[in-house]
Amino acid sequence: MDFPGAHILSIQQFQREDIERVFRTADRMEPYAQRTKLTRVLEGAILGNMFFEASTRTRISFGSAFNLLGGEVRESVGMDSSSLIKGESLEDTARVLSGFSDVICMRHPEAGSVAKFASASRVPVLNGGDGSNEHPSQALLDLYTIEKELLARGRGIDDLRIAMVGDLKHGRTVHSLSKLLSLFRNIRVVLVSPTELAMPEELVELLKVAGHQVTVTESLEASIADVDIVYSTRIQEERFSDRAEADLYRGRFRLNQAIYTKHCDPNTVIMHPLPRDSRAEANELDSDLDANPNLAIFRQTDNGLLVRMALFALILDVTQLLEKYEQPIPWHNSRDPRLKPLDDQA
Amino acid sequence: MDFPGAHILSIQQFQREDIERVFRTADRMEPYAQRTKLTRVLEGAILGNMFFEASTRTRISFGSAFNLLGGEVRESVGMDSSSLIKGESLEDTARVLSGFSDVICMRHPEAGSVAKFASASRVPVLNGGDGSNEHPSQALLDLYTIEKELLARGRGIDDLRIAMVGDLKHGRTVHSLSKLLSLFRNIRVVLVSPTELAMPEELVELLKVAGHQVTVTESLEASIADVDIVYSTRIQEERFSDRAEADLYRGRFRLNQAIYTKHCDPNTVIMHPLPRDSRAEANELDSDLDANPNLAIFRQTDNGLLVRMALFALILDVTQLLEKYEQPIPWHNSRDPRLKPLDDQA
Amino acid sequence: MDFPGAHILSIQQFQREDIERVFRTADRMEPYAQRTKLTRVLEGAILGNMFFEASTRTRISFGSAFNLLGGEVRESVGMDSSSLIKGESLEDTARVLSGFSDVICMRHPEAGSVAKFASASRVPVLNGGDGSNEHPSQALLDLYTIEKELLARGRGIDDLRIAMVGDLKHGRTVHSLSKLLSLFRNIRVVLVSPTELAMPEELVELLKVAGHQVTVTESLEASIADVDIVYSTRIQEERFSDRAEADLYRGRFRLNQAIYTKHCDPNTVIMHPLPRDSRAEANELDSDLDANPNLAIFRQTDNGLLVRMALFALILDVTQLLEKYEQPIPWHNSRDPRLKPLDDQA
Repeated sequence: MDFPGAHILSIQQFQREDIERVFRTADRMEPYAQRTKLTRVLEGAILGNMFFEASTRTRISFGSAFNLLGGEVRESVGMDSSSLIKGESLEDTARVLSGFSDVICMRHPEAGSVAKFASASRVPVLNGGDGSNEHPSQALLDLYTIEKELLARGRGIDDLRIAMVGDLKHGRTVHSLSKLLSLFRNIRVVLVSPTELAMPEELVELLKVAGHQVTVTESLEASIADVDIVYSTRIQEERFSDRAEADLYRGRFRLNQAIYTKHCDPNTVIMHPLPRDSRAEANELDSDLDANPNLAIFRQTDNGLLVRMALFALILDVTQLLEKYEQPIPWHNSRDPRLKPLDDQA
Repeated sequence: MDFPGAHILSIQQFQREDIERVFRTADRMEPYAQRTKLTRVLEGAILGNMFFEASTRTRISFGSAFNLLGGEVRESVGMDSSSLIKGESLEDTARVLSGFSDVICMRHPEAGSVAKFASASRVPVLNGGDGSNEHPSQALLDLYTIEKELLARGRGIDDLRIAMVGDLKHGRTVHSLSKLLSLFRNIRVVLVSPTELAMPEELVELLKVAGHQVTVTESLEASIADVDIVYSTRIQEERFSDRAEADLYRGRFRLNQAIYTKHCDPNTVIMHPLPRDSRAEANELDSDLDANPNLAIFRQTDNGLLVRMALFALILDVTQLLEKYEQPIPWHNSRDPRLKPLDDQA
Repeated sequence: MDFPGAHILSIQQFQREDIERVFRTADRMEPYAQRTKLTRVLEGAILGNMFFEASTRTRISFGSAFNLLGGEVRESVGMDSSSLIKGESLEDTARVLSGFSDVICMRHPEAGSVAKFASASRVPVLNGGDGSNEHPSQALLDLYTIEKELLARGRGIDDLRIAMVGDLKHGRTVHSLSKLLSLFRNIRVVLVSPTELAMPEELVELLKVAGHQVTVTESLEASIADVDIVYSTRIQEERFSDRAEADLYRGRFRLNQAIYTKHCDPNTVIMHPLPRDSRAEANELDSDLDANPNLAIFRQTDNGLLVRMALFALILDVTQLLEKYEQPIPWHNSRDPRLKPLDDQA
């Protein structure tokens, strides 16, 4: 994949060397995201952040990523009912909107819609999630997190041991992650789910064809004993025909500190695509894990910002210009230790 | 009209020399919109983009126009139900909001509302559409498109031959365009609509008083034979009492490539205010026209951006400073040929 | 309170010297808000403007305040139903969103929610209103307005004479203002309300303990005779069980120019937290007062902008750098007299 001017629609576009390029670019974004450095390389550029389906965290993450590089954001939230009622095709919408910005990020509830939109767009389009189909930046941030978390442990994506837990049937993130993992070597994947919510057969096949070792099980405790990563997922309630059906599975695989201490190797990394369901009846990841330094779930979303910055920088071909457009930061970096905990404020 | 600090509420404010000034300013905006140049002349200025009625394309167009000149945008979408419930007058809303920005663009469903708002505003207000009443930037972009498209053909707005087709009763854009055309000379206007959806009599009269030749007909084929422009419009379904009534007229005047080839002069320009209704039962402009280089409908929306940039530049009096605030563009211009079609991406 | 990096959650955090510091910083913001000067001290900084409850004016005021200092704004409007449905805790939302910006302003319908959010946030959080609980920037702008209006009259907050009128039971602003006034000396407060909508007893007590003189009455005319400020409020209809109950009180205490002329001292300042209810049945402040130079209600919202700029500048510790980052303003200042009244436009 040649990034400058490219659409980013699917993780299937990515070869191993492309992933490597995204991750090494993401590494360089850390000081800008941490506010120890400021770059204005995209000053004057405009992102069209078109979320035809609401998603606060992903929308803000894309918008902030563009702002952190110095660019501007124009935004839409929710389905444009007026144009739909008036019978406009998605291609016409693309022809119009692509005249207003330098790059577009788009989320849409319908599978395939973003690719259709991109086919008529005059500027690069980044898929921010098209229904149950693709959400490439999420898959990349998951893999980037795995790489980063394991680096300090002297381990890598090759030879990884990972347990994926929960609703593996509907979870878009575990599907995409499996596809990405098929590009790497010698991985052991444990798939933990109720039989009814098992990983689709073609994805299991894909992992096996890649030479990986796949185990399917319904037992959480046994599965998390010898892995580097426990990747927990939410029961995707909204994909079930009714809430009662989802309730059958909710809370089946709970991880808390006691289970972690008893069954996991020390330093086993806990991941989750978020939001985690913290209601008592679900509680996939108990809040008593919040003090566990191996809980990587918020580092995941932080890494999402870095990966999205990297994608923008690669598409707009400014990776070699980041430093040239640096400026001093005059304001107080509120992420430093001077941000006191709430109780200490008088 | 003296533009600096002026409200832009109605096309009736515009004399022929004002239109000329907007268009020549819009011409100068093209390199900024095409991203071959970058200006930051409005850096630090704030647009209040107040859309009390949803309209993704017009809202984003105004916002991007302001960003392209270097300014910032604060935005509102949808009716502010809370202030309405609390009984606030539109004038009070204006008094408050006009303290927060340098210029306001406002859309509101009620005719006359924007002028009422402007009467109490402390900053210039641009009418982004007030119900069935006015939408001056749309009328200007239509006329600007006509001028631009005909220039290469050695023709101009004076002596223009135009067919307006469709729902001429409810179509705000054809009404406004007729008013603007009355400022020019020796125009031949063919009005093609069902009798029930005819152009209002006072507008026909206005065109005649201006010395123009007006023909009223129900036949599409005969009408498009000797014109420079075919201006097609959508049946304004939302203005009918029910959908069934709108269905009576939907799809009555369809233009496709076969009809175009058979009946139109070569190089006849096709326009439409968008969105075009691409559902099978309507399909005013068939998608087989998309390959026709005379289909100007997406150049219209691109011109809208230029016209809106021009209006902002005239109101804020920076037309002589655009070049002074230019900066180099460090990022990849994604509108250049390097943006490969989708199938070529690996 | 040490401002750099601090959360601003409650007016109870403010001592008299803190208030003084906010107000003197707000004074310095006036030329930037009036557009006679431009500063870019926060260029590159990002505000997360998270309005989980709609509020056009407050949201735009915070966003514009940040833009006026040179910063960028990412925004959310309305409850994020998707995350709620998915069972995410407010703390998790904070952990995620605080990775995307340098400071967060948050409004939320639930009392205590903003403090809960702040406890998990990695960046400073500014309370933009949490239900019936707190709205500190509104209380500060009210007090700042009182100080500013009285300055020209040779009077100050100490020794103030103020009448608070209307729904004193539900009005969050009069509660907060009372708390702030308890930090000052020798104030005379007249509380004018129906008995059923009286100021809560603990607040009356707080004023008395501070040594202030408190009078409770149901008579408007007698109460406004010897005061510096008449602070009128709206019947908070949305806090009543039904509209009929609110109707019992609506319009009970109307102030118009005739009553003002007959009963008030000349130069008595009229304030109101806005929106004022201008419907005939309410009309707390008649529009015939709009010509009265002592009507300070729109100066209040303008002061809100200054106070919010000041809070951002103090939290991000740039008060000493405002001038250093000044730039010339190239555009037409549309607030100058060249903005002609509507009828003069051709």
